[in-house]
Amino acid sequence: METKKVEVIQDIHAENERIAREINADYNRKGIFAVNVMGCPGAGKTSVLKQIIARLPGVKTYVIEGDIESDLDTRTMQALGIETVQINTGGACHLDSPMIAGALKNIELKEPGILFIENIGNLVCPAEFEIGEHIKLLISSVTEGCDKPYKYPLAFEKADIIILNKSDLKPYVDFDDAFFSSGVKGLNPGVPVFEVSSKTGQGFDAVVNWLEEKRK
Amino acid sequence: METKKVEVIQDIHAENERIAREINADYNRKGIFAVNVMGCPGAGKTSVLKQIIARLPGVKTYVIEGDIESDLDTRTMQALGIETVQINTGGACHLDSPMIAGALKNIELKEPGILFIENIGNLVCPAEFEIGEHIKLLISSVTEGCDKPYKYPLAFEKADIIILNKSDLKPYVDFDDAFFSSGVKGLNPGVPVFEVSSKTGQGFDAVVNWLEEKRK
Repeated sequence: METKKVEVIQDIHAENERIAREINADYNRKGIFAVNVMGCPGAGKTSVLKQIIARLPGVKTYVIEGDIESDLDTRTMQALGIETVQINTGGACHLDSPMIAGALKNIELKEPGILFIENIGNLVCPAEFEIGEHIKLLISSVTEGCDKPYKYPLAFEKADIIILNKSDLKPYVDFDDAFFSSGVKGLNPGVPVFEVSSKTGQGFDAVVNWLEEKRK
Repeated sequence: METKKVEVIQDIHAENERIAREINADYNRKGIFAVNVMGCPGAGKTSVLKQIIARLPGVKTYVIEGDIESDLDTRTMQALGIETVQINTGGACHLDSPMIAGALKNIELKEPGILFIENIGNLVCPAEFEIGEHIKLLISSVTEGCDKPYKYPLAFEKADIIILNKSDLKPYVDFDDAFFSSGVKGLNPGVPVFEVSSKTGQGFDAVVNWLEEKRK
């Protein structure tokens, strides 16, 4: 049974990557820069996106919201006038590229710009699946604790940019910056880490500058 | 390919449940009450266990620590003199009953008591797998936000007890108690919810009373 399991999983991964490459090629034709936004439940993915998008007034932005159930975040985004499409995975713990291909039928990427894809809140599984993105943006938060890179290494290893959110709560939690940094550096030397507060907006100008530079 | 995938997953679930039943029967023979501790990364699973175990001085307690990598939490527990064994899943996003069966070879449950099993930090996958436990204890925290029951329903639906942690941070975050409670009640009416702070210890006496009553 074990062999059969491995074979099937390999099939799924190969098919997923093939579709991811097609999606990525389509983004490139259309001038879309796609960002896979990952983080655990409550890291602040939606709030971070709101802060980033508010700082990109001259840029066309699109959002795909991935959730197991509910459309709470999609309604938040749409209320702000952001073109958003919902994926409900109905139990699945991560987005994959066939889901993205399906969602892209419901959103017309007419103008060049940035597509933010909010993955399922999960610090494990999403990091294993390419979904056609150009970069992976990982959101961690100070309230989760400074040991996360050691316990969930793959997400930190694969990130192109790390956002450390909820800096406004730092005075009230025990967060060892040096331990966190050392964990990140051991897995992914050179990855930029931006400390922000999605509540106050602090730190987001630097994030947006980095993104704008990256998509050039 | 889809059919094959479903077949294999059904095989895995059936085998998992068969082993879970064997493990549970063994616990019953030995007078062990097993608690499957679930919650997302940084919900405070280890800190909650420390607070609970400190309030059970007359009870023999054991811990199985599930992590993808690292033995940080095991070392924390062992430093407190708690008999603890580590499972490293090497990437897997949840514990399953074969992993527990393996870990039980490395811990002798000599005296009756309580075995706490700290699952992988993940609000999605662990809820799908029985691991031989008597109850599922779900830890959520106010810093994760009040919308978690709506977004990650299975874990809330399956929980026998819910702990809402980090109450000391409530003054600094926007947490709508009524929205959270309404989400929980919609999924799992009657489940007890205990608000606690693993930092100050507030609220844990009631949790321990509930546990002691439950295992009678």
